[in-house]
Amino acid sequence: MPAYKAPLDDIRFVLFDLLKADSLADLPGFADATPDVVTAILEAAGEFAANELQPINHSGDEEGCHFDDGAVTTPKGFKEAYAKFVEGGWPGLPCDPEYGGQGLPKVINFAVEEMICSANLSFGMYPGLSNGAYNALELHGTAEQKRLYLPKLVSGIWSGTMCLTEPHCGTDLGLIKTKAEPAADGSYKITGTKIFISAGEHDLTENIVHLVLARLPDAPAGIRGISLFVCPKFLPDTAGNPGQRNAAKCGSIEHKMGIKASATCVMNFDGATAWLVGKPHKGMSAMFTMMNAARLAVGMQGLGIAEAAYQGAVAYAKDRLQMRALSGAKFPDKPADPIVVHPDVRRMLLTMRALTEGCRALSYWVGLELDISKHHPDEARRQEADDLVALLTPIVKAFLTDHGFLAANLGVQVFGGHGFIREWGMEQLVRDARITQIYEGTNGIQGLDLVGRKLSQGMGRLLRRFFHPVSAYLEAASARPEMQEFALPTLKAFAKLQQATAWLAQQGLKNPEEAGAAATDYLRLFALVALAYMWCRMAELALQNQGGDHAAFHESKLACARFFMVKLLPETNTLFATLTAGGQTLMALPAEAF
Amino acid sequence: MPAYKAPLDDIRFVLFDLLKADSLADLPGFADATPDVVTAILEAAGEFAANELQPINHSGDEEGCHFDDGAVTTPKGFKEAYAKFVEGGWPGLPCDPEYGGQGLPKVINFAVEEMICSANLSFGMYPGLSNGAYNALELHGTAEQKRLYLPKLVSGIWSGTMCLTEPHCGTDLGLIKTKAEPAADGSYKITGTKIFISAGEHDLTENIVHLVLARLPDAPAGIRGISLFVCPKFLPDTAGNPGQRNAAKCGSIEHKMGIKASATCVMNFDGATAWLVGKPHKGMSAMFTMMNAARLAVGMQGLGIAEAAYQGAVAYAKDRLQMRALSGAKFPDKPADPIVVHPDVRRMLLTMRALTEGCRALSYWVGLELDISKHHPDEARRQEADDLVALLTPIVKAFLTDHGFLAANLGVQVFGGHGFIREWGMEQLVRDARITQIYEGTNGIQGLDLVGRKLSQGMGRLLRRFFHPVSAYLEAASARPEMQEFALPTLKAFAKLQQATAWLAQQGLKNPEEAGAAATDYLRLFALVALAYMWCRMAELALQNQGGDHAAFHESKLACARFFMVKLLPETNTLFATLTAGGQTLMALPAEAF
Repeated sequence: MPAYKAPLDDIRFVLFDLLKADSLADLPGFADATPDVVTAILEAAGEFAANELQPINHSGDEEGCHFDDGAVTTPKGFKEAYAKFVEGGWPGLPCDPEYGGQGLPKVINFAVEEMICSANLSFGMYPGLSNGAYNALELHGTAEQKRLYLPKLVSGIWSGTMCLTEPHCGTDLGLIKTKAEPAADGSYKITGTKIFISAGEHDLTENIVHLVLARLPDAPAGIRGISLFVCPKFLPDTAGNPGQRNAAKCGSIEHKMGIKASATCVMNFDGATAWLVGKPHKGMSAMFTMMNAARLAVGMQGLGIAEAAYQGAVAYAKDRLQMRALSGAKFPDKPADPIVVHPDVRRMLLTMRALTEGCRALSYWVGLELDISKHHPDEARRQEADDLVALLTPIVKAFLTDHGFLAANLGVQVFGGHGFIREWGMEQLVRDARITQIYEGTNGIQGLDLVGRKLSQGMGRLLRRFFHPVSAYLEAASARPEMQEFALPTLKAFAKLQQATAWLAQQGLKNPEEAGAAATDYLRLFALVALAYMWCRMAELALQNQGGDHAAFHESKLACARFFMVKLLPETNTLFATLTAGGQTLMALPAEAF
Repeated sequence: MPAYKAPLDDIRFVLFDLLKADSLADLPGFADATPDVVTAILEAAGEFAANELQPINHSGDEEGCHFDDGAVTTPKGFKEAYAKFVEGGWPGLPCDPEYGGQGLPKVINFAVEEMICSANLSFGMYPGLSNGAYNALELHGTAEQKRLYLPKLVSGIWSGTMCLTEPHCGTDLGLIKTKAEPAADGSYKITGTKIFISAGEHDLTENIVHLVLARLPDAPAGIRGISLFVCPKFLPDTAGNPGQRNAAKCGSIEHKMGIKASATCVMNFDGATAWLVGKPHKGMSAMFTMMNAARLAVGMQGLGIAEAAYQGAVAYAKDRLQMRALSGAKFPDKPADPIVVHPDVRRMLLTMRALTEGCRALSYWVGLELDISKHHPDEARRQEADDLVALLTPIVKAFLTDHGFLAANLGVQVFGGHGFIREWGMEQLVRDARITQIYEGTNGIQGLDLVGRKLSQGMGRLLRRFFHPVSAYLEAASARPEMQEFALPTLKAFAKLQQATAWLAQQGLKNPEEAGAAATDYLRLFALVALAYMWCRMAELALQNQGGDHAAFHESKLACARFFMVKLLPETNTLFATLTAGGQTLMALPAEAF
């Protein structure tokens, strides 16, 4: 089993050196978020992840969840770990102090989520879903709903779910059949079956708050006839404590490829009592605010897995002795050299590392802008940040999860045959990572969100929030000789991204299927350019700190930046070529010829 | 569970239209291999795979193998299926009639292996290993060893293993510690522990023939001191039947990510009786002949998985209704369109298909040349074929298994959330495929074999066996207007491969680590060019048959060829760029900085 140690130096480098997150403390509501406090929180989170969550990751996978007549039991140790998680106040970290939260910046919670997911992705699902329910109720719930549910979700003694998918519909929620009938007392009776409900039933909390999409009797067909409801497992009594058992029951749990310690439930609603959240028929927009937060959280799952895989692979590569270095023995006193000397092993390790560190920089930047979008006193700055978050959310979700899966597989490959054996823990990372490319909108859907919604929004305003500062930065950086090895290739890739964007705007207007055909390539091209930009900025910092206190740390950053530029960024050439080749070859084959 | 139907039309197209395999019947020893006979065999194999092997694939994965005090039980149905496999004479298909085999061409067995692995990769492991043992004994065994073991392996009533890996060594077999002490009667006593021994113990056959690498007392250190031994589970008695139980015992079985119905054993040899195969200290070269055949067989495993994943994904994509086509509803009478209408779903399906069909063409070509290398009356032609097989073996192993894993993952992605659920059977393909990139030499090792051994062998003679005919073909094809859309991009990619080869030859001489750093990129570049060449030739055939009897079949080939050229071949640009960027960024980071 690979040990996990929170990469605090790397996290602090991104937060404070790169993103200047110390400035967060100047924003209204964030006075407590000083670097000292943040550092203490990150250290504590890292210890919690390493000491409480990682030790039950493999055993949780082997044991899985148990289902017995509607009740779900989590694997050994999960209940105790969750109790400590609640005791430590972790569920409320980014939540409003009005409901008992600590009101800390979301970007700090991003870092905490990364660590939790490195240590135990299945465990992370439970508070992750609660956080989604919290967001939906905080934004769209009535005062009474907030009073009843939010303090319980914030403390973590209740958990939450998002009940969207049905057997015949996942991506296409317009097909939802679950019904909500109004009752005389203003509540509703929900009837229908939901599937793939993470944390739908479990033994960690005294109550579970389901947020359910359903149709009112007078609902228009399709996506404009969906409403959002809150439907607790136990109806709160007058004192707000769990009262009568609701008719929302778990029918079975799924047997899955991975995240086996996370209960994925079939939920049967049989006239279950629920209350409308937000306006009738406006459930999708309420769900979208929740889903955008969830998409970023899934991106952090990808990042967490990637970091765990890298740590496992490095430890093995330094320890495993096999063959001599091609340039001659490096450790002649040992029977063979550690495999970290071999170029192809280094290729795998550096691919994991350069992408993981780039992904961390990109996603934390989005996390910081998310905080600015909520807390900055200047409305224009808030809008700017909100635009950037909206633009980059599908990229963070898709690219970070694709990377998490790639990194997990590279980790297995570094281990060779031992990577395929369960007890080593590396193959679990592959199985756990695989779902992140699928749920909260498949990565293909993220591409469509980017090209179909985000590019055109505000006549390209979202795009300009990224293009303008990046362009200005790269122009300036490429004029400085020491920065050219980073800035020039990035500028070239950025030009490809700009060309591809123009091509897409033109073709997509003529034929929407061209946009659909280009979506996945475009998202990946965008992501690589965004990572290159982050690596330029990290390299710049490292150059400034060369020969300083942490010389080796900064030299490593430069080495990774160089590797990224010459070994990973060139993929943009292929993406540009395949994207601009258009969709004709995709659409030519008649459906029956497949 | 995805149904499986053997792709007989595609297989026949490659064998007879593309490769003219009917000419095999003209070679000495292959008189029986007429197209009618071959077609009947392929049909029967397809039915066996679909009706006997596929139905126990998912249940075999769920149940896994059982270990109890040295005995291994395969999952329900495996014993019965194996008995039918033996009854049908399948184990002896490519084996010498002198030992009871059918003496059919190996390329036919390639097609049979593909089908078996599409239906049930775990099952395929058992005869696959036997075939490896057969090859080693046929080439290197004494007359007495052949007489004792080959008929039993050919009939399938005994099975075989390859015992190479030890806990501290896999890739680096020079580190092997297992010892062989000479006994007075000319036999040897083997002592040591081998791990990852596929089919090391099971309940399918009455005896198991282990081929074991070990060191003689006077062995030189390292790879030049390894000898090969045959060590049966039961010592054959005078009549050749299983007699005394040998001290070669299974200590445990591994719990793995996939191929769970294939028993992966720890084998303890405790003074086990064995006999030398081949010359003392020459075990590695004997093992290599066996390993090269095994590497091609593993390539076929990748192809088999890819085909199964494609079939599963297509069935789902035609059935699952979700969203409307971007260009407007295609099935307005249904609640939504089948997802096969969406460009991004087609991108995934066509990627699977164009690579799978290209891989089939490439690997069957290698299979045909393998037969020519053994059976052609002209020695020069035999050498030419042998060279080509040697050159392309690492490419078939690595590229086809990388593709198998990619295709399995695309299959899961097409299924969305259902792909992650075990009962649908798609995630098993991912888990089963994952090992093929690792065993029989990791895919990184295949790259090193290609650049380190195959390129330089015979002063580049092997390479010329591929470069010259391909160059001549592409020059001619690119002069014909109807072929230009295929031949011109292939010619361009081929030029990159030639340039990369020259670069590698030059750099590798100066610094062997440059060759190591380039190996994986080079192999993939080579593979894509080889596939493009196969697609040119398939497109040429399809053009000739346009509007003919199987018009739709040939139109599909053209559509896939076009897709390959514009959507998949451009990866060669990136590979060329990253390869020629050199290894400096890989080697710069000191080991302790990882």
